Amino acid sequence: MKEFQVIELIKEALGESAEADWIRRGIGDDAAVVAWSPGMDIVSSIDSFLPDRHFPADAPADLVGYRAIMASFSDLAAMGARPKYGLISLSIDKTNGSGIDWILDFARGCACAANKIGVALCGGNMSNGPLSISVSVHGEVKTNRACLRAGGRPGDFIYVSGPLGSAAACVRLNDLVPADSHNLSPPQEAFYRPSARFDMSKYLESASSAIDISDGLVQDLNHILHGSRCGASLESKLIPLGDSAELEDGLFGGDDYELIFTSSEDLGSINKIGQLTEELGIRIDGEAITPRGFDHFLNQPEP
Amino acid sequence: MKEFQVIELIKEALGESAEADWIRRGIGDDAAVVAWSPGMDIVSSIDSFLPDRHFPADAPADLVGYRAIMASFSDLAAMGARPKYGLISLSIDKTNGSGIDWILDFARGCACAANKIGVALCGGNMSNGPLSISVSVHGEVKTNRACLRAGGRPGDFIYVSGPLGSAAACVRLNDLVPADSHNLSPPQEAFYRPSARFDMSKYLESASSAIDISDGLVQDLNHILHGSRCGASLESKLIPLGDSAELEDGLFGGDDYELIFTSSEDLGSINKIGQLTEELGIRIDGEAITPRGFDHFLNQPEP
Repeated sequence: MKEFQVIELIKEALGESAEADWIRRGIGDDAAVVAWSPGMDIVSSIDSFLPDRHFPADAPADLVGYRAIMASFSDLAAMGARPKYGLISLSIDKTNGSGIDWILDFARGCACAANKIGVALCGGNMSNGPLSISVSVHGEVKTNRACLRAGGRPGDFIYVSGPLGSAAACVRLNDLVPADSHNLSPPQEAFYRPSARFDMSKYLESASSAIDISDGLVQDLNHILHGSRCGASLESKLIPLGDSAELEDGLFGGDDYELIFTSSEDLGSINKIGQLTEELGIRIDGEAITPRGFDHFLNQPEP
Repeated sequence: MKEFQVIELIKEALGESAEADWIRRGIGDDAAVVAWSPGMDIVSSIDSFLPDRHFPADAPADLVGYRAIMASFSDLAAMGARPKYGLISLSIDKTNGSGIDWILDFARGCACAANKIGVALCGGNMSNGPLSISVSVHGEVKTNRACLRAGGRPGDFIYVSGPLGSAAACVRLNDLVPADSHNLSPPQEAFYRPSARFDMSKYLESASSAIDISDGLVQDLNHILHGSRCGASLESKLIPLGDSAELEDGLFGGDDYELIFTSSEDLGSINKIGQLTEELGIRIDGEAITPRGFDHFLNQPEP
């Protein structure tokens, strides 16, 4: 069973509890959008990070923290929201002596990312157990102005906020464990120090749809296409590739946390990679391709 | 190293990122209190639940879900907040066939608890990994009216919202795995179906301090005493005990999620168990006792 099928079943099981008239967008987008005060909505999301699933178990703790904060807040960036605060739940096996050092390095990495995007980390929780990190993130957006996955229209241009594939190249090149966390190769930098692209918010104001690339350009674009009920035509030569990245990394590799967004406007300086189409499916250089990328339910590259 | 010491070190490592002038209460209370809109603050908290730490691995999934939601929202009840919505991150090993059934039973249990307290479960996240549940919960309270741990004054009466110790008795009696989730013994009911005591909010409006009992009456009362810089004198015969509970369960057992709160007012119908005192420490029937209960860093009853 695929992730989206499981999510549909979960929504069904949650029933009425998943809905309320003050929830503008619930399960099924990058983040939930909740009507709160006059003129403003809250945008909220939760993510988890597990060793040897989302990061190597022996990765430096400060990098694990940095990445967890940026990857989590990236969901708010994709909504065009202004980020405000995050809460962290950390489960860690503290019976060994290095536990406290790991925790503090992790916290310093979290703080570094939080300072960079101007958010507060004002609460959390700690348990003794297998290493696991959950981060809930919260921001605000003007009423009904959150940029959703649905909303793209045929003819809209497709943009990406920056070079892709470098984090995937880091995985492919088996280069995931740096000698020290202050001296990263460019692919390691892409993997561990992604940027939540809040600097794109001015473009998202007029965008018709948006998502962040956590699972791969093609897979995440496909979420926009499902939501917007249209297809896409891309030009491979327009897809910006990061350091060490090959086209495959850029198309199918996740973890870059750049944004994809669509707009009817011509945004000169942003990487335009194609257009939305009436015809369903994704074509690259005119050839239909099958979406594949990371599926969280299968937890593996999906064929 | 004890939990509170670790939390102090984490605050230090987070540095400025843990603070902002719009965070009314950050790390170190039941929940974070964030200034949001004129007249209203947001109250937010995150909790995690691990098998064989917080619930038996073979417990029915719907009960695990019910308890996770109630225990998480209990932190908001302890602040006198009005609960609004929650986000759930579920990590589960889905390679075995029963994974999807477990997930859906879990979701139904979450929904049941959510409906009972009138909140929405509007977002989440799923990963493939060892079973782990994180819940972030969000509510609102009038500006500066969140009921904190600090604020109790010598002479204030100490109240608890209901009978204690039954959940602990369930653990002590090794009665944690019910034959079926619709037919629970009273101690199992206490353990798996606690109530987040939002019905106490009218009393919390005039309370000087409050906390929910997750780690034991004495241990959690001690958080109030630390925050309020005073001591407490309790009368053992006034401590209400739940089904199968002995005094030890009521004093040192956690998991009941009743509230402790202090008030200078005489609240006739609520269980008054003692008074705050100038003299530091906790006395029961005049005898000083050493706080002990569940320590999340040690993850064991603390001597």
